[in-house]
Amino acid sequence: MPRNTSGRTGKKKRVLFQPANIEVLVEPGANLREVAMLAGVRLIASCGGAGTCGTCRVEIKEGEVETTRTARLTDAEFARGMRQACQSRVLTDLVVNVPVESRLETAVLAREQKGRAAAQKGVEALATGWRFNPPLAKYYLELPPATLTDNTSDLSRLLRGLRQEYKLSHMTVDFEVVKKLPTLLRQSDWKVTVTTLVTAIEPKGNAKRRPRLVNVEGGDTRDNHYAIALDIGTTAVKMQLLDLKKGRVVAEGSDYNGQIDYGSDVITRIAYCQKPGGLEKLQQVVVGTINELIDRLLEESRVSRDDIGHLMTAGNTTMLQILLGLDPKYIRLAPYTPAATYVPPVKANSLGINLAEHVYLFASPLVASYVGGDIVAGAVAAGLHQTKKVTLYIDIGTNGEIVIGNSDWMVTAACSAGPAFEGGEIKHGMLASSGAIEGVTIDPATLEPTVSTIGGTKAKGICGSGLINTVSQLLETGIINQKGEFNYDLPTKRIRQSNDVYEYVLARAPETQINNDIVITAIDIDNLIRAKAAMYAGYQTVIKSVGMTMKDIEQVIIAGGFGSYIDVAKAITIGLLPDIPRDKFIFIGNGSLMGVRLSSYSTDIIDEMRRVADLMTNLELSENADFMNNYIAALFLPHTDSNAFPSVIRQLARTQKSGRRVAA
Amino acid sequence: MPRNTSGRTGKKKRVLFQPANIEVLVEPGANLREVAMLAGVRLIASCGGAGTCGTCRVEIKEGEVETTRTARLTDAEFARGMRQACQSRVLTDLVVNVPVESRLETAVLAREQKGRAAAQKGVEALATGWRFNPPLAKYYLELPPATLTDNTSDLSRLLRGLRQEYKLSHMTVDFEVVKKLPTLLRQSDWKVTVTTLVTAIEPKGNAKRRPRLVNVEGGDTRDNHYAIALDIGTTAVKMQLLDLKKGRVVAEGSDYNGQIDYGSDVITRIAYCQKPGGLEKLQQVVVGTINELIDRLLEESRVSRDDIGHLMTAGNTTMLQILLGLDPKYIRLAPYTPAATYVPPVKANSLGINLAEHVYLFASPLVASYVGGDIVAGAVAAGLHQTKKVTLYIDIGTNGEIVIGNSDWMVTAACSAGPAFEGGEIKHGMLASSGAIEGVTIDPATLEPTVSTIGGTKAKGICGSGLINTVSQLLETGIINQKGEFNYDLPTKRIRQSNDVYEYVLARAPETQINNDIVITAIDIDNLIRAKAAMYAGYQTVIKSVGMTMKDIEQVIIAGGFGSYIDVAKAITIGLLPDIPRDKFIFIGNGSLMGVRLSSYSTDIIDEMRRVADLMTNLELSENADFMNNYIAALFLPHTDSNAFPSVIRQLARTQKSGRRVAA
Repeated sequence: MPRNTSGRTGKKKRVLFQPANIEVLVEPGANLREVAMLAGVRLIASCGGAGTCGTCRVEIKEGEVETTRTARLTDAEFARGMRQACQSRVLTDLVVNVPVESRLETAVLAREQKGRAAAQKGVEALATGWRFNPPLAKYYLELPPATLTDNTSDLSRLLRGLRQEYKLSHMTVDFEVVKKLPTLLRQSDWKVTVTTLVTAIEPKGNAKRRPRLVNVEGGDTRDNHYAIALDIGTTAVKMQLLDLKKGRVVAEGSDYNGQIDYGSDVITRIAYCQKPGGLEKLQQVVVGTINELIDRLLEESRVSRDDIGHLMTAGNTTMLQILLGLDPKYIRLAPYTPAATYVPPVKANSLGINLAEHVYLFASPLVASYVGGDIVAGAVAAGLHQTKKVTLYIDIGTNGEIVIGNSDWMVTAACSAGPAFEGGEIKHGMLASSGAIEGVTIDPATLEPTVSTIGGTKAKGICGSGLINTVSQLLETGIINQKGEFNYDLPTKRIRQSNDVYEYVLARAPETQINNDIVITAIDIDNLIRAKAAMYAGYQTVIKSVGMTMKDIEQVIIAGGFGSYIDVAKAITIGLLPDIPRDKFIFIGNGSLMGVRLSSYSTDIIDEMRRVADLMTNLELSENADFMNNYIAALFLPHTDSNAFPSVIRQLARTQKSGRRVAA
Repeated sequence: MPRNTSGRTGKKKRVLFQPANIEVLVEPGANLREVAMLAGVRLIASCGGAGTCGTCRVEIKEGEVETTRTARLTDAEFARGMRQACQSRVLTDLVVNVPVESRLETAVLAREQKGRAAAQKGVEALATGWRFNPPLAKYYLELPPATLTDNTSDLSRLLRGLRQEYKLSHMTVDFEVVKKLPTLLRQSDWKVTVTTLVTAIEPKGNAKRRPRLVNVEGGDTRDNHYAIALDIGTTAVKMQLLDLKKGRVVAEGSDYNGQIDYGSDVITRIAYCQKPGGLEKLQQVVVGTINELIDRLLEESRVSRDDIGHLMTAGNTTMLQILLGLDPKYIRLAPYTPAATYVPPVKANSLGINLAEHVYLFASPLVASYVGGDIVAGAVAAGLHQTKKVTLYIDIGTNGEIVIGNSDWMVTAACSAGPAFEGGEIKHGMLASSGAIEGVTIDPATLEPTVSTIGGTKAKGICGSGLINTVSQLLETGIINQKGEFNYDLPTKRIRQSNDVYEYVLARAPETQINNDIVITAIDIDNLIRAKAAMYAGYQTVIKSVGMTMKDIEQVIIAGGFGSYIDVAKAITIGLLPDIPRDKFIFIGNGSLMGVRLSSYSTDIIDEMRRVADLMTNLELSENADFMNNYIAALFLPHTDSNAFPSVIRQLARTQKSGRRVAA
């Protein structure tokens, strides 16, 4: 390990990060991952700094750190200066190299954004029949000035105007409106624009809505009428700025959820919240991300901050509770209860969100601890509440969410698939950003691969969809069997053993950015099988719970950034998706953001969200015996029940035979 | 003027106030009235420190002040060291004597309190038929713990419990409840007490009420269930602590409104609010008074602050707007519009009131800038909304409020009577506290007076009711004529001239605390005539506006601390009250506080308040020609229209004749 002689003193130390070339001064003893966060250098840190994932590795080029060594680094790596940043403390001035595989880059988001945008048209077509009647509305009034014979109060005059001009009555009034009214009415010569909000979702059975008077402005401001749609993902935060007058998106953007520095999945985040000040910290961090996105969208669109009057959001239950400062502790503990399925609207600025005082944040209602408002919003965007077709709606990810049903009934479930789909716990796994191997074909004769990467660059690792494609090809070419075991006696150097584990070499060191062979190991394959088995067992269990079988599924809607990029045929081959006709699969991209956008445009959609959330019955899989049986039965490629995958079995018979023939 | 030699230096100066014996250190140049405020020495200061009223006079016993002299002090007074505190700046160490007539004492409040309490039984009887159904309610729940087969959200479980146990539905939920729910439910073993609030007054025509879930506590706390009733007067703030379980007052108290240091009437206060920071200052000051009263009541009753769940209040429009931080500017400017007649409930602690976070302040609805929620509350307490009798409801004071009507219709008006009824602008006028001359009889033969004072002490001055009694006696004995002019040739030394103004000596210097003769002057009498004329013209104008005459009045209800102490017969003699049978007058004391208390006990009463406020039609008298004519006609004792006061005219003929006979 390279060292210099600046020694251990109480003086501040310089830490230079390369290749970004960012330098910071820190106290000796500072945790190197935290130093990177301070410097704005984003490291992947799936475990949130516990030392268990090994994704935040950096190379110490100069200087000395004190490190707690874990099994995540080999002797060779350690010898050449690689360290887990989260396990290292700064002792001297440092020069630190951040290798590509440790860098969190924003390319993945841009890609999802594009994918989503492409899928968007399809979705708007799925949910139909809603009127354009935004919950936030503006009304212009020219009031008669007060006189001695008509000197009713300012508020009464305003309400009378709304009643006479717009037939609006039964208003509730925010106190802040009363506060600004007397001066405003006179300064603006009794011409004002009133903003009303249908107080989000009303309880069931309440026929008469009561709009809330949330703001009043001088003059006619009806042209300046905007709202924000916000999707808070565990990994990424996505935002659209909506023009409520014209009914269109005027700007959009996305960024990593700042909480990613504190762990990549909800469980790590919940654990962090149990530390003193942890919940407040994560709340501030995600608000920071939201505020940066707002700033960016405002700058891009040249919309004024004060013209944004509403903030609709959806996210998984943990993300929502942290944003609202609601301790997510009981989401993680059996029996897994969320604080609320319908959270009352809350002033956005009371959470630290940098919007005008009158802006309420409204969250899509949710179903359970692991079936959040993002699923409700997505299901509505996808028109599940309108179709008679029995539909399987899935959002594949570390936490896979499943909805089965139609306009009359819906059953939901969540299954913990593990991080394999997002590249986690995979030797060369990575998020779907530039350099990730995605396309993979293996020549059945030579067993040589042809790979393509996102962005067309040299390979850095394998993303989730690449992993599915790889395993599917390994299976079709007989390199692995249906248990996922390597046929290690095949005549190819691509299959080899390392540390007693078989692996297949997808890319040789010179073809990569990391100057190392990129491989897929038997352990990786096992992780993927467990992930897909969890998803499949989930569908099966839910379908059986309503007395149906997989054959009854009339359409499959795949939501989520990850889902948009999977190859249906290959996903069926490994048993991740059910073996039904390929034209019954529909991709909708980010259903959550779509649902939120639609609900910003239409109070009808808000009503549907509430109805759908109430309609959804959640099936808890975590201790469900049937689920466990189904899961074990699915630990096979594609499945132990070959009758469930007839087309795959036929195909495998064909390709493996042809492969063996060619090889022979 | 006594001086000492400590001289003018930059050093802090000692100011000793006597007889309270309170010393403070202040910067040289400090305003002496502000120094007194700092020392907690309360001076009467009707004009709020403008120098125009002369009520804050003090005697400089030692040391030197710099004074701007006004006409409020005679040469003799000035020579013996009397100064207006508000016009004086500290130059040296001082010993300052505060004469009794300048001291603001709390005795008056205790007296009003007693008067009110005595009158209370009668009032509760006036408003009848209301159910005991407080807007703030508590419900105890033992919820089934969450299980894997029933793991709905914590909030849904709570709402389900309320629905099943208490048939409560259509709740709106405060966000803070959601925030504390997860931990609380588990800590208290799923046994909780929920607090709901009927969100004050609902808009008209909304059949279905929607209670608001405002708080949740662990265990069964139904026995700890309190609310505060608050009456905010321009002069005094009165408070009751109510046990909502038992439906009784557990403690009560009152204090001067701290704003009294900034002027005695609403107009002075509104003017102060126009200074930079003025509104914020007055808001803080009245909140300070409220917080002190809360502390006192909590200590006395040993009730815990957190057990107070609601704050109902009423006050005149200016007091309410200042409390809420609503600029009262337009109350004073034509056409005199209040900010709102129905102010949305607001969190008490957002105003600085030291109560638990979940406590809402709800204000009685009001009618107009000078017909406030105190009148609405009082009218309901007095049962105006229930009676078929045509009723005149009056609250006599600097600002006199009038209601005429019954359960079907009500017309209101306000008339500015000036401060005479509260002892203002009367040479020896004072508030009704210890030492105030109240009872006065004048021997028709000798023209010698017999006076009695509040508290039975030596006389300090004359209070408003004493003034009415005095003038009535002066008239009956022929010392003054019906124009209020002195019959200066009568054979008595009690009538004399001072500075060209006639006066009658009520008490000789040795009989007084002030060592000065206490007199009533022709100017005082003139001020009283103008005050009573404004009130009477008010009734007349309103009655005529509905096509009735004074004869149609079936009962007169007199509200307010001052009203409780007036002698009906004598008030009729001077023409302050109409000449109708004496048994048609009812005194109800502080109707405002009563109404607020009743509304804390009964949602029915809240409904009636809203209905009454809507029912009331306000007649603006300030630029009403009929009112001006009536006013001029009433500038006579009892009135220029002797047909309107037949019993008085008969009595005067009798007594004046008998007086003259005896004297002859």
